[in-house]
Amino acid sequence: MDLKTLGMVAQEPLEKDKGRKFSPIVFERHQPGDEDIMFDLKYCGCCHSDVHACENPDGYKPTVPGHELAGIATFVGSKVKNFKVGDKVGVGCMVDSCHDCEFCEIGDEQYCDNGSTMTYGGEPKHGRAGTQITRGGYANKMVVHERFAIKIPESMDLKYAGPIMCAGITVYDPLKHWHAGEAHVKHIGIIGGGGLGHMGIKIAKSMGCEVTAFTTSPSKVEHLKGLGASKVIVSTDEKQMESAKRSQDLILNTISADHDVMQYQPLLRPNGNIVQLGLVQRPHTVPQVPLLMNRNGICGSLIGGVKATQEIVDLCAKEQIFPDVKVVPCSKVDEIFNELQHKSSTVQRYVFDISTMEDFHKERSDKVQTA
Amino acid sequence: MDLKTLGMVAQEPLEKDKGRKFSPIVFERHQPGDEDIMFDLKYCGCCHSDVHACENPDGYKPTVPGHELAGIATFVGSKVKNFKVGDKVGVGCMVDSCHDCEFCEIGDEQYCDNGSTMTYGGEPKHGRAGTQITRGGYANKMVVHERFAIKIPESMDLKYAGPIMCAGITVYDPLKHWHAGEAHVKHIGIIGGGGLGHMGIKIAKSMGCEVTAFTTSPSKVEHLKGLGASKVIVSTDEKQMESAKRSQDLILNTISADHDVMQYQPLLRPNGNIVQLGLVQRPHTVPQVPLLMNRNGICGSLIGGVKATQEIVDLCAKEQIFPDVKVVPCSKVDEIFNELQHKSSTVQRYVFDISTMEDFHKERSDKVQTA
Repeated sequence: MDLKTLGMVAQEPLEKDKGRKFSPIVFERHQPGDEDIMFDLKYCGCCHSDVHACENPDGYKPTVPGHELAGIATFVGSKVKNFKVGDKVGVGCMVDSCHDCEFCEIGDEQYCDNGSTMTYGGEPKHGRAGTQITRGGYANKMVVHERFAIKIPESMDLKYAGPIMCAGITVYDPLKHWHAGEAHVKHIGIIGGGGLGHMGIKIAKSMGCEVTAFTTSPSKVEHLKGLGASKVIVSTDEKQMESAKRSQDLILNTISADHDVMQYQPLLRPNGNIVQLGLVQRPHTVPQVPLLMNRNGICGSLIGGVKATQEIVDLCAKEQIFPDVKVVPCSKVDEIFNELQHKSSTVQRYVFDISTMEDFHKERSDKVQTA
Repeated sequence: MDLKTLGMVAQEPLEKDKGRKFSPIVFERHQPGDEDIMFDLKYCGCCHSDVHACENPDGYKPTVPGHELAGIATFVGSKVKNFKVGDKVGVGCMVDSCHDCEFCEIGDEQYCDNGSTMTYGGEPKHGRAGTQITRGGYANKMVVHERFAIKIPESMDLKYAGPIMCAGITVYDPLKHWHAGEAHVKHIGIIGGGGLGHMGIKIAKSMGCEVTAFTTSPSKVEHLKGLGASKVIVSTDEKQMESAKRSQDLILNTISADHDVMQYQPLLRPNGNIVQLGLVQRPHTVPQVPLLMNRNGICGSLIGGVKATQEIVDLCAKEQIFPDVKVVPCSKVDEIFNELQHKSSTVQRYVFDISTMEDFHKERSDKVQTA
């Protein structure tokens, strides 16, 4: 079996606007076992957290990023139940977890008591993700255990699958966990209209919710309405914010820049929660009394489990909910990382066309790494 | 019908250690209607918030405190369904709400969209609580709409009923709301071993939970175990706190003094919430990342609705869960308020023996107020 894989690696921690960022790398995926699937990648989305992962110098190791993988199965192990060769297959943020703890059992592998193995940069300690620090989807081949493989419906264009398994699940999982669409959780606020926010609006609407979008940009109002928001509130307009008081049963806050979460608490109805989704660095100042008076919560949520990821992929296929993607050749990787290093959010998700991986390797043949 | 009522009133906002605090007051309860119950009070608990209500000078009005009323029905209106003359009856923190909004409908009258009417100091705007600012249970007679009357089981000594309808419901309501005792919410932490905490331990245990109590006082360890805690952690002991990391599915934090809630977040398991129950004044500093990484929430909760109050009274009767009360004559009111003005928490709840109200009036006959 040919395990040879061509990828893109950030050999050193990336600095802004400095030099060549990615080099070609040739490595071998681990030999697929009875419960594994091997697939040829067609696309891999470029997530903002790929940029953060390659920027952080603390204990940096060469990184092949990418946790939005989509391709076509080329091998399925003898014990694989739900995939056959030729099927569309995806991988999101995780490739392994213990399978034994309470959280794996309920499908919340992201909170695995023994630590889930992330798709790249992860320690393969549970035995189903090879033996080396994991390498992600900026590569033309993948091996994954069936439990972490997502079945992409035949009807879905593979270029959309990646961002649904990242931005899509990140908004769907909290919507589901906090009962969006059920009685008394019909009014959903989505703060921010970037990659998470725009998927949040579409998905919440498809779950039967009435969506209010909150944005700082008056210029985005019509666009957000077009996505399905029945109301759009410009959050810098005090009068508009006042009019939205005590109106939302659940708020997903997608802002990842420093901000004051309590600005949004008055928007909640009693029993309502604000779920924070961004890796905000500055702590919030949270007075206790408004939480008490309304049984409100300030919560957080991180991606989502495999079962929920399959659900949201299926829902998006059924409801024709697709992220706003721009397919780019692998050779654009440095340019795109430069752009994202200067932006805190984007609506459009770049997706690498992995069929251009060989070109990338040819262009940079002077710098090929082997591992 | 004799509506004449003898009560105790704080005519002016109370100051610490200063002068006589309460005067006798004679007033008339409103005429009970078809759906109302009138009862003679036997006991009324003295809650710490009675002290706060009488201390706050902002827009102060003369206050007859008390929201832990227990007595015997002397009249029931023709449309009252569940009470008859001679029944034991209680009233907790509320005496009216709109009955129309989403929250009244689901039994969360404390979050009524139109504002619930509190048992004392409340505006009787919904039409079922008389026409004047409400007067509470430091009085020998009460009229209440059936919807806000709690049936006290015949087997329960009335002296216990009041604190169950206040401290009891304040811990029971969040336990119920956050699914204590259900699968994956079996490990309950109770922070603080005062009036709320000691009821929390007993009630959570009776709901099938394994309770860990957290206290700052090593001297309280044995006592808290005696109440039903299977583990007691001294929260000032770093090693003990370390050993309790990621162990609790739900934490009720009963501390009302200023503190840092994030000290307790590491104790939560993923999907776990900390519910804050005290009126803490200083805001908390809440970093977002630990909430994200564990799908944790920092929440608040305020008393509980009528249905839940009835449930906890019934549960306490069935399970023989009783608060630690000390029955005192009304004439002790000044002394007790003095004591509570100097304390942030107590286990023991003072309960006024309302049969001594006439003595209080006689003793202070020089100062009787009429209204």
